[in-house]
Amino acid sequence: MVKIVAEFRQEREALNDLVMKYADLTIKRFYGLDSQAYREGALPPKTKEMLGLVASLVLRCDDCIKYHVIRCKEEGVSTDEMVEVLGIGLVVGGSITIPHLRRALQAWDELGN
Amino acid sequence: MVKIVAEFRQEREALNDLVMKYADLTIKRFYGLDSQAYREGALPPKTKEMLGLVASLVLRCDDCIKYHVIRCKEEGVSTDEMVEVLGIGLVVGGSITIPHLRRALQAWDELGN
Amino acid sequence: MVKIVAEFRQEREALNDLVMKYADLTIKRFYGLDSQAYREGALPPKTKEMLGLVASLVLRCDDCIKYHVIRCKEEGVSTDEMVEVLGIGLVVGGSITIPHLRRALQAWDELGN
Amino acid sequence: MVKIVAEFRQEREALNDLVMKYADLTIKRFYGLDSQAYREGALPPKTKEMLGLVASLVLRCDDCIKYHVIRCKEEGVSTDEMVEVLGIGLVVGGSITIPHLRRALQAWDELGN
Amino acid sequence: MVKIVAEFRQEREALNDLVMKYADLTIKRFYGLDSQAYREGALPPKTKEMLGLVASLVLRCDDCIKYHVIRCKEEGVSTDEMVEVLGIGLVVGGSITIPHLRRALQAWDELGN
Amino acid sequence: MVKIVAEFRQEREALNDLVMKYADLTIKRFYGLDSQAYREGALPPKTKEMLGLVASLVLRCDDCIKYHVIRCKEEGVSTDEMVEVLGIGLVVGGSITIPHLRRALQAWDELGN
Repeated sequence: MVKIVAEFRQEREALNDLVMKYADLTIKRFYGLDSQAYREGALPPKTKEMLGLVASLVLRCDDCIKYHVIRCKEEGVSTDEMVEVLGIGLVVGGSITIPHLRRALQAWDELGN
Repeated sequence: MVKIVAEFRQEREALNDLVMKYADLTIKRFYGLDSQAYREGALPPKTKEMLGLVASLVLRCDDCIKYHVIRCKEEGVSTDEMVEVLGIGLVVGGSITIPHLRRALQAWDELGN
Repeated sequence: MVKIVAEFRQEREALNDLVMKYADLTIKRFYGLDSQAYREGALPPKTKEMLGLVASLVLRCDDCIKYHVIRCKEEGVSTDEMVEVLGIGLVVGGSITIPHLRRALQAWDELGN
Repeated sequence: MVKIVAEFRQEREALNDLVMKYADLTIKRFYGLDSQAYREGALPPKTKEMLGLVASLVLRCDDCIKYHVIRCKEEGVSTDEMVEVLGIGLVVGGSITIPHLRRALQAWDELGN
Repeated sequence: MVKIVAEFRQEREALNDLVMKYADLTIKRFYGLDSQAYREGALPPKTKEMLGLVASLVLRCDDCIKYHVIRCKEEGVSTDEMVEVLGIGLVVGGSITIPHLRRALQAWDELGN
Repeated sequence: MVKIVAEFRQEREALNDLVMKYADLTIKRFYGLDSQAYREGALPPKTKEMLGLVASLVLRCDDCIKYHVIRCKEEGVSTDEMVEVLGIGLVVGGSITIPHLRRALQAWDELGN
């Protein structure tokens, strides 16, 4: 799991430096809002990360998918649950999501299940 | 709740008649698969319906949103949970989802919360 | 068939009047290009209309779908062929296309097959 | 101009009532952010509304298009400028945007140019 | 042609191993349905592959485009036909498809026309 | 600035050679139309490039974003203006645009602001 999480954290820090170099109040507030939406509320973070993942899959954003796959792992999503989340994304979004589902499973596989 | 559910069931039956009049094996099998994806598995139907809803919101399909809003109600999703699901869709999908979020809340409101 | 084709032609003329009232050279040239792309070439108009239909279905544009369904009928697409075109769109585009597939079949049905 | 603007304001108020009935902090903050992004900054509101319009056109959201068409009018966008904004959206987004461009011009026309 | 087809087949096998390691019934059935939709029916596989290609182009999925470009070649699509399919996708989907059209033509070029 | 602009121009020339090798009249005319839409008119090229950029961001096309970021720089867009354009795209298109906004800012950063 170390490699993916390490790379992810490294990229994220580099990203934050670049974004913070340029971001105005709108962008900064969006980032704050993005974090807030996934925090514990009526729904637990685990469910929220699965929601973020399926949304990312049907919108076909590989970076977003990878982020939520890692977060799902951290929140204790099981392999059977992961496969069901991806299956719903596949049925809703169609075969056009297959290349992204494939890369989602690659990331999941590397996280050591 | 009667009006929305009644209309929904009526439209659905009319739809099924039309689809079944024309559908070949591919379309019929897709319909079967679509039902199967939301059945009890590692994840309960309630979670799966929330996944279907957030996917429908970010893809901005009003008919799909309405369907999953009704199904979420049937599966016992609370108003606080519903609002958090929609909030994640809004943050992921942006302001372009607002007209659909609005209609989702209208449907939810009519379902009698 | 009369009703749909009549409405379609009426709307199209009203549209053309409005568009021509405002269109600059960019918009006018786009309209010309749009017509040209579906003309007889290496591929016959029938195939091109089916291509336009499947593209419209996966992009989920009801007006575009209706236009190409009518054009497919005019070009002699059979019901079996129509259903297979829609089936490919459904598999590629996922369940999110179902409300549009449904309306495509409604239009096809009214065209008197 | 009265009819469109009146309807728009009426719908907006009804919307705000419904959204405010249900909205949690995430949704409320998103609404605040949405307003902020279009305020006077390095770019004037007129340019920002044109940016919002072209984004709405290529994403094919009729409600969003209508909103930005009205706002563009309020900010003094000329008909020639409006047509050029729509032309860029048409070229970037393709013929699939035509039904939306058509409705954008209908709204513009009713605003009394 | 050997290099692209070889790489494609190699990746596909690796993909199948990974997908089959994790896939549940929903994902497996979707894969089966995906194959079925392109089989000989009222429309020949050649037409169906062109439909799959134009759908993939307007949805801007490079992996899907590459797959259907290769399949089109195998089904005997001519260069003139290929260019017309891509032209329809370009007009429907707009300039945003250009980077993908470019890569589609690169793949087609390497296939030795 | 030399590296990005140099690579961009080199790729563009290679692209043009490949496209011109295959393009039929439809594709050639689309390319002409694409250039025309951004020329000086009622709106200056600077505004049009910002429109092209925000459209590319919400449609999440990295190649298109890079192209318009470079063109914005050439047309004298300031860093504050660039950040506001990206902020509108982010709010309209949601968190799914973040990986693209990130790469837009990377390109902008390398252009030497």
